[in-house]
Amino acid sequence: MCEILFYLIIFVAVNSTDLKQNSYQKGNMAKEITSRKENYSQWYNDIVVKAGLADHSAVRGCMVIKPYGFAIWEKIQAQLDKMFKETGHQNAYFPLFIPKSFFSKEASHVEGFAKECAIVTHYRLKNDPNGKGVIVDDDAKLEEELIVRPTSETIIWNTYRGWIQSYRDLPILINQWANVVRWEMRTRLFLRTAEFLWQEGHTAHATREEAIQETEKMVNIYAKFAQEWMSMPVIIGTKSESERFAGAVETYCIEALMQDGKALQAGTSHFLGQNFAKAFDVKFLNKDSVLDYVWATSWGVSTRLMGALIMAHSDDNGLVLPPKLAPTQVVFVPIYKSEEEFNNVTDKVNQLKKALDAKGITTHYDNRDNLKPGFKFAEYELKGFPVRIAIGPKDLEKGTVEVARRDTLTKEIVSQENIADYVEKLLIDIQDNLFKKALSFRSENITKVDTYDEFKRVLDEKGGFILAHWDGTKETEEIIKEQTKATIRCIPLDVEAEVGKCMISGKPSTRRVIFARAY
Amino acid sequence: MCEILFYLIIFVAVNSTDLKQNSYQKGNMAKEITSRKENYSQWYNDIVVKAGLADHSAVRGCMVIKPYGFAIWEKIQAQLDKMFKETGHQNAYFPLFIPKSFFSKEASHVEGFAKECAIVTHYRLKNDPNGKGVIVDDDAKLEEELIVRPTSETIIWNTYRGWIQSYRDLPILINQWANVVRWEMRTRLFLRTAEFLWQEGHTAHATREEAIQETEKMVNIYAKFAQEWMSMPVIIGTKSESERFAGAVETYCIEALMQDGKALQAGTSHFLGQNFAKAFDVKFLNKDSVLDYVWATSWGVSTRLMGALIMAHSDDNGLVLPPKLAPTQVVFVPIYKSEEEFNNVTDKVNQLKKALDAKGITTHYDNRDNLKPGFKFAEYELKGFPVRIAIGPKDLEKGTVEVARRDTLTKEIVSQENIADYVEKLLIDIQDNLFKKALSFRSENITKVDTYDEFKRVLDEKGGFILAHWDGTKETEEIIKEQTKATIRCIPLDVEAEVGKCMISGKPSTRRVIFARAY
Repeated sequence: MCEILFYLIIFVAVNSTDLKQNSYQKGNMAKEITSRKENYSQWYNDIVVKAGLADHSAVRGCMVIKPYGFAIWEKIQAQLDKMFKETGHQNAYFPLFIPKSFFSKEASHVEGFAKECAIVTHYRLKNDPNGKGVIVDDDAKLEEELIVRPTSETIIWNTYRGWIQSYRDLPILINQWANVVRWEMRTRLFLRTAEFLWQEGHTAHATREEAIQETEKMVNIYAKFAQEWMSMPVIIGTKSESERFAGAVETYCIEALMQDGKALQAGTSHFLGQNFAKAFDVKFLNKDSVLDYVWATSWGVSTRLMGALIMAHSDDNGLVLPPKLAPTQVVFVPIYKSEEEFNNVTDKVNQLKKALDAKGITTHYDNRDNLKPGFKFAEYELKGFPVRIAIGPKDLEKGTVEVARRDTLTKEIVSQENIADYVEKLLIDIQDNLFKKALSFRSENITKVDTYDEFKRVLDEKGGFILAHWDGTKETEEIIKEQTKATIRCIPLDVEAEVGKCMISGKPSTRRVIFARAY
Repeated sequence: MCEILFYLIIFVAVNSTDLKQNSYQKGNMAKEITSRKENYSQWYNDIVVKAGLADHSAVRGCMVIKPYGFAIWEKIQAQLDKMFKETGHQNAYFPLFIPKSFFSKEASHVEGFAKECAIVTHYRLKNDPNGKGVIVDDDAKLEEELIVRPTSETIIWNTYRGWIQSYRDLPILINQWANVVRWEMRTRLFLRTAEFLWQEGHTAHATREEAIQETEKMVNIYAKFAQEWMSMPVIIGTKSESERFAGAVETYCIEALMQDGKALQAGTSHFLGQNFAKAFDVKFLNKDSVLDYVWATSWGVSTRLMGALIMAHSDDNGLVLPPKLAPTQVVFVPIYKSEEEFNNVTDKVNQLKKALDAKGITTHYDNRDNLKPGFKFAEYELKGFPVRIAIGPKDLEKGTVEVARRDTLTKEIVSQENIADYVEKLLIDIQDNLFKKALSFRSENITKVDTYDEFKRVLDEKGGFILAHWDGTKETEEIIKEQTKATIRCIPLDVEAEVGKCMISGKPSTRRVIFARAY
């Protein structure tokens, strides 16, 4: 069984630490987390809720992103925003509402895009004449219903029509940070919610080549962010026709592998050709003074990245965060019995903290006096603080501190001297180690198969990414999806050309594509 | 006539500059702006649209915030967010939708709050069986309608119920950056739009005193931001009962005076007492183990600040921005005839630009070769870049540059040596000058009156803030509002106690309040 294999790997990883020495924490732990082995899905939900990242709200399918979760999202936003601006993009803001008729303008967009969305039909409430409360005022019915944006191509291209006359107005490189709504029936915190937060880039170009270049540039930015900031390896590829964004000519994506062997699409970048320009009549005079339609791209990542980040690294003790995205990288926990001890420890902590702060390391001193150290240790493990520094009277005598790292759950006694340099290197090491660990997990869970029987067996017993030959037809893809629930995650960009036969039809294939069951 | 007086002041201000020397720009100007004298309202709209700040959208009452306008908003956001975090607040995110029944729970909230809002009644579209396009699927009607948040007290207090058990869980100091919708019938870009962006702080406290302290702290932060960052003087005060936020015990506000003599409410901070805690049953065990309702505040500013910023300083040439909120503080414009001249100028600009960048000054080099300097000058005046530096072959010879400041429209020949220091000081000077200018305008437009006749005369002939005695009753307030369209902007916090008589009823009054016609 793939699950047993999987947990064996995890067990070995965890066992190589001094977790046993920390077993007292279990008893003290404020909030127990279901183990991955017991129930992976519940484990995920426990971490999200108990680490204080998000919670369900009174509105079906909508979540509340709690301060700690939002602080991580702000880190994600800040870095992505920086990368977008460094590549020449500007932010703007377009309306939340889209007239219903706009959706019908791009034929494949309306056909392919889910029709589950929030529809505004009225604009006024009134007091209920039959009692308390308010009711919808039927006299305030909109002439045309408004759709709460599920994505903004239509309203944005309708706007671009007024902004573009000549090639001199191009390119337009705009991004928007916004909330969007898709009326999902089965929701999971961060991974699939009715309302979610995202960014959507919408660019306009004078040539096909430039638009394709932009599409590729952005998927590469997403990959760079996933790997260098989230410590999460991803495979870059293109989608098969049936998995493409509705209205796109080509969809690029980054695909990550979660600990349960399922794939997660973490970001997409679409080359839209001239489809939306044609639908919204956006033309420009090119350098040869010929009128042509504008070329488009769109690209986005969402709060779904939070789900990927959580699942990529966390363990049965709670959240594990890469230092670059941790709201607080280092927490100091004082060990003391008397007030005098507390004061001496506090003096030292303030001194060490200052040295760390000066290096731009984010720190917190937990001086709450109503909680025991063990409780605090468990809390910071649950919340995924990358480094914990404990310091007590003995440390003061010896000039040491106890440094615990969250990724390996190991502890070390370290000299107070040069602690800032030590921690600075340690944070880089943790960032790096998380990536390597995730990469090695993924390497172990990419399997080449040549027959459909093998495909099904691997899918059920091991999961992960499966590299197989496919004849390129929708029909074959559909058979596989129906029979196994696996989909083509992507046609990877960097895979070698290889002559083979489709595992279903036996027809020739020139390269393997990646299949997986997915979130 | 107050308008004549007003434009006289402006004329004097403008006349003290070398504007006449720039008259060639008029002919070159890409986009003409209606003068304030001709049509103040059109002047405002021209600046918003022609400086590229925002535009109307295809959706009634909703605007598109264009990149340049959004860049200013990002500056506003960044500074406010910093000030909120420095005072211990954290960001979070709550759902866009609020169940209709929530609005009925706090009686004065539902009574007092406008019922014009966007109402979601359905969650699915379907293909129109009678033709092209999509229609609302009647089978997908929501059991309870959802309201697109006009403000979030209800959904947030419903959430806080689950977060608060004891005084140890308090205070909760949360802020949210979000979009909200109020179905306004008459909209104006930034000042009043159906959808707008804002921040809303929602805090929960164990005591009445702490909540009041928080309410006051936040209105003071708004005032500090307005004055130090927007260069816009404001009066801090409390609202009269009838102008109070629906559900608040006390509303604090900052009020600014616009160039047309009308007031603009730029931010509010509400002490909500225990009203929302009672409506949503949010109780906590206090330090004495007694169950009590939680005390609340809420406070917000919105993209309306953009409107205030534009109107506070701009002139008939376009936008005028305080340097602290200008997306780009300094633009370099090259003057040249030959390619050789251009190359020499460019080398020098790169060198000077580097020196400015090193000081954290934001700069742009406009090296577009298809536009004349005069056109560029006019464009940057329109867009309100605080400082423009022109440099040509003669400047290279003499080691000088021509520095033009947007606030006074004056120019100076300055040595290239120490240009970074010079510009750094100049930016501070401009920031300061804008505040002083706005403050002196406001001082000239605050009038004390003692009779209703005088009140009406000043209101019609001069406008501005009017300090008058009022008997403290709703009735009197209503008479004044109906007859003059003036409202009580606030009861200023720092006004001296003064025995007087209400100008309407003759009843005793202990201090003057501020009246004005308002946006």
